Amino acid sequence: MSDLARKTAENLRKIRTSKPLIHNITNFVVMNFTANVLLATGASPVMAHAENEVEEMVGFAGALVLNIGTLTDICVKSMLKAGRRATELGKPIVLDPVGAGATALRTAAAKKILAETKVSVIRGNASEILALGDQKAAGKGVDALHSVEEAGAIAVDLARTLQTTLAITGPVDLVTDGERVVEIANGHRLMPTITGTGCAATAIIGAFLAVDPDPVSAAATALAFFGIAGKKAGVMAGGPGTFMIQLLDALYTLTPEDVQQRCLITVR
Amino acid sequence: MSDLARKTAENLRKIRTSKPLIHNITNFVVMNFTANVLLATGASPVMAHAENEVEEMVGFAGALVLNIGTLTDICVKSMLKAGRRATELGKPIVLDPVGAGATALRTAAAKKILAETKVSVIRGNASEILALGDQKAAGKGVDALHSVEEAGAIAVDLARTLQTTLAITGPVDLVTDGERVVEIANGHRLMPTITGTGCAATAIIGAFLAVDPDPVSAAATALAFFGIAGKKAGVMAGGPGTFMIQLLDALYTLTPEDVQQRCLITVR
Amino acid sequence: MSDLARKTAENLRKIRTSKPLIHNITNFVVMNFTANVLLATGASPVMAHAENEVEEMVGFAGALVLNIGTLTDICVKSMLKAGRRATELGKPIVLDPVGAGATALRTAAAKKILAETKVSVIRGNASEILALGDQKAAGKGVDALHSVEEAGAIAVDLARTLQTTLAITGPVDLVTDGERVVEIANGHRLMPTITGTGCAATAIIGAFLAVDPDPVSAAATALAFFGIAGKKAGVMAGGPGTFMIQLLDALYTLTPEDVQQRCLITVR
Repeated sequence: MSDLARKTAENLRKIRTSKPLIHNITNFVVMNFTANVLLATGASPVMAHAENEVEEMVGFAGALVLNIGTLTDICVKSMLKAGRRATELGKPIVLDPVGAGATALRTAAAKKILAETKVSVIRGNASEILALGDQKAAGKGVDALHSVEEAGAIAVDLARTLQTTLAITGPVDLVTDGERVVEIANGHRLMPTITGTGCAATAIIGAFLAVDPDPVSAAATALAFFGIAGKKAGVMAGGPGTFMIQLLDALYTLTPEDVQQRCLITVR
Repeated sequence: MSDLARKTAENLRKIRTSKPLIHNITNFVVMNFTANVLLATGASPVMAHAENEVEEMVGFAGALVLNIGTLTDICVKSMLKAGRRATELGKPIVLDPVGAGATALRTAAAKKILAETKVSVIRGNASEILALGDQKAAGKGVDALHSVEEAGAIAVDLARTLQTTLAITGPVDLVTDGERVVEIANGHRLMPTITGTGCAATAIIGAFLAVDPDPVSAAATALAFFGIAGKKAGVMAGGPGTFMIQLLDALYTLTPEDVQQRCLITVR
Repeated sequence: MSDLARKTAENLRKIRTSKPLIHNITNFVVMNFTANVLLATGASPVMAHAENEVEEMVGFAGALVLNIGTLTDICVKSMLKAGRRATELGKPIVLDPVGAGATALRTAAAKKILAETKVSVIRGNASEILALGDQKAAGKGVDALHSVEEAGAIAVDLARTLQTTLAITGPVDLVTDGERVVEIANGHRLMPTITGTGCAATAIIGAFLAVDPDPVSAAATALAFFGIAGKKAGVMAGGPGTFMIQLLDALYTLTPEDVQQRCLITVR
């Protein structure tokens, strides 16, 4: 645990020093908030989704963030192009399968991205992540699952099947590559009251992947950092509006030392 | 009046309990703010505009919000598809004809949506609403109208013609289905100083329609709730930035009891 | 200097009185923030990018803002249509070449807009602006340039070549039409910590162009006003979140008298 706490501080320090460019192809709801979250963390966000630009742009990036929140067929094409190029270049990709399992378009798009590119980390809630498995993997059905804990055993299997790292967020977050399982207990109850906290977590995982080649460690330390900022903001907030603003301030003002002391990461 | 005040509290309580899914096909300017407004109110927002997804998505929704603020021809197709499906399923639709009367594209799109789907409530300012009538209905021309009061008589006729409920917002809001006329005097002078307050009002009407089958009562109670939150936020704010943030906090922290006491609704 | 300070106050007063409509075809990241910045300043923003609507919309506008931040081929078409119509009508255009020099698509789009429309002011950072010149004009290459000061001499030449006014923003801003050179030293170190401050500066230049026919004076006074608001907000802020919100409050609450006293404009 203290290893990952130290690593959280180290990763944050590296981001603040190297200011990695994070290329986002993301949804229209959270573009502004995601860019501000990455800037406050210390990374350099770029949002670019034109099919005839994404391959060039991802060449400059330290990581690629794909988020299917307001998907269209044109977006999917751009995501696949950028993702294939990132795969060729060996650049880490993080996928946010927003709404996978809800509509056929979203589930299919997420699966296609997984099939055609090398995704380092998938970040979603339990339902979204488990929708990416086949029915056998999902076992009793996603609707019956209420917590990260219940999703844990299935997630380990699914990570092995998909050969990637899963980051399932909820009151307690779980990160697994099918071998290692890490839980992160940082966070605050106001986090789900604003739109885009999940998407922000995904983007921060992108920033951490740009400086940390181990997907499990990158995802776990990113979620610890984000949860610590959420807690700091939650204490200051009177509701979701002030929470959103205090969250940006917290991401910006937290030091590596602050973060190291507050990590609640458990290796299971 | 006290009936509608009680109804405001009751509708808010129902939203907080059932957390209805509100499907928004809305403009790019306000997507984030609208989602946060719905979350703070207690509803579950989803923003989805892909033509090959909207029919499936609206099937899960308690109401459909159509907003033509940054319209393109592709958006119009998605809105019509979602709207026709919502009509088949008997799900309430609220339309925000942003900029109707300003350009031919917008006026035509709003009229097409009205012709091909069953819209429960149209929410706009006086000019936008009256642009939906023909020239005879509009009488002396929309540019000559400066207030909800002046628009009142025309609005009653127009609601009958369009066979829907009109919600015209301004310093005093007016809701009419051509028979009943209700005025709502809640609100604050800072509300028009940020972008998307009108769009937010429309989305909240969507949330109220998901729990209240009477369009006049749903629209009037939604506008009272929103205006009460605006007043609470306005008292705390030093300008439009802090107002926007305090508005989200107010929507989240107001209780049904608070709301019932503060309603300024008059049945004319 | 005191002339431009007086002019800053005068332009702000004219915007607050005449509330010019500013037509923005801008990127999805900053649409909401840009609209709120224009409202707080006193202008009337409209965001409209549909190819079959932009010519009609720009007819109502006092200025046109073109921003290539999340460019696609469809956007470029709309920008050219709107830009050509604005040129015919003699309406001022301000261009923000976001990311010019980074990808071929963006550099080409910016150059095409410059070739086919009459742009009054281009606002960008040093790298973006210098990417618009050919290699000879750019001299030792944009990557070697670190400050507005270093870009100054090249900018004067480039303004002459492009026959437009350049507004290069940074710790000190520089405005030149190839003859006159003005520096603006207002601003705050938190300004680059949120996304869209550059885009907001561009939009405010649009509002000032709507009331001031001299592009150098319009750009310089707009940047002074924006920098003064940034400074006021920075003093109140605990990080980028609170800065963003205080910036909107400052734009709204600053009076022409406040602004006139605080201008740090130097004519070189």
